[in-house]
Amino acid sequence: MYGMESGPQRRGTARKAILSATLKLIAESGVDSVTHRRVAQAAGVSLGSTTHHFSGRRELLRESFQQYLLWGNRMIRVLAGAVQERKEHPVDQVRAILVALVEREFANPELVRAEYELLLYATRDPELAQMVTDWEANLVGPLAAVLREAGAPRPSECAHTLVNFLRGFEMERLIKPALGRDEFVRRLTPLLGALCRTGNPIQRQAERLC
Amino acid sequence: MYGMESGPQRRGTARKAILSATLKLIAESGVDSVTHRRVAQAAGVSLGSTTHHFSGRRELLRESFQQYLLWGNRMIRVLAGAVQERKEHPVDQVRAILVALVEREFANPELVRAEYELLLYATRDPELAQMVTDWEANLVGPLAAVLREAGAPRPSECAHTLVNFLRGFEMERLIKPALGRDEFVRRLTPLLGALCRTGNPIQRQAERLC
Repeated sequence: MYGMESGPQRRGTARKAILSATLKLIAESGVDSVTHRRVAQAAGVSLGSTTHHFSGRRELLRESFQQYLLWGNRMIRVLAGAVQERKEHPVDQVRAILVALVEREFANPELVRAEYELLLYATRDPELAQMVTDWEANLVGPLAAVLREAGAPRPSECAHTLVNFLRGFEMERLIKPALGRDEFVRRLTPLLGALCRTGNPIQRQAERLC
Repeated sequence: MYGMESGPQRRGTARKAILSATLKLIAESGVDSVTHRRVAQAAGVSLGSTTHHFSGRRELLRESFQQYLLWGNRMIRVLAGAVQERKEHPVDQVRAILVALVEREFANPELVRAEYELLLYATRDPELAQMVTDWEANLVGPLAAVLREAGAPRPSECAHTLVNFLRGFEMERLIKPALGRDEFVRRLTPLLGALCRTGNPIQRQAERLC
């Protein structure tokens, strides 16, 4: 099989399907519901395929989490690139990135639930906890750079505060699905303006937006 | 048994022990680990006692969650009362309440983990989701009242933003246990000052505190 040209790609497809099915299972019924048998069924592959690709349940969970974090990174890079091309004021760039991020997540609430299930699972697994810490640093770094440009006096700290706010909002939305984009913008705008100390202009803008 | 004077109290004690053991189990190994048998063992009561007090697993989880929320309410009332007696500026009152809240939670990280496990569980149970929504309204109400006094232009929205931030910080701390009170204060103080638009004085205070 390794000699076939389509081999690696076929294997890659099965792997992806298995990881997607794992995240879906986690979102639906929690981390504890993940078994090789259930994943194989959900992914539409043989049980042998899941055990071939992933030696055990822990590896399956770890790789799914990594997959989720990679998607997140890619999404943030794409959004950040698109926003920067528009050459907006840095505060508006940060706002646009965070709003776009939340809108993508609004479209996939099951992935948000999987993320929080995995975050809690990571609190009991130091290796996963380290992955989360590294990923957060990856997110906070570029965010802090734009915040510095926007005049934030403590950009790295502000970036952490924004990530905290974003997480708390996402958690609240899992409980209250009616919470929408407008409410997010209403909360985010004065927060951003305040963290960047842009003073009255952004406050006025916040009032226009609210 | 119902005729015995010590009966209700004894029953109350067993009930409390069962609910505490349930929360402990959830914190240690997640919601799925909760079974009548494991709870009885952890609480040091007979299996008959758990099934006498709680008809099923779902009732056990719902009541544990309610118990957790009641503890939270009581704690917030006590903290708010103590802070208000000191007659501080409203912004300082809000900060003192949130810092005290976080410090209590730092002392019991396993309860924080149980809270988030239950929050995720609640996203799949509309009755529990409603309990969380009501509880959050209970927390946001008094917080908004102090924020209004402190000059916040949109006190209810600010209170939600603060609760979001608090939740995100708690989640981050579950992953990074080294995150301490000082970092929380460093992030909270400028945020609070900004949300209340107290302007330069609180910013200067924030710089002193950082």
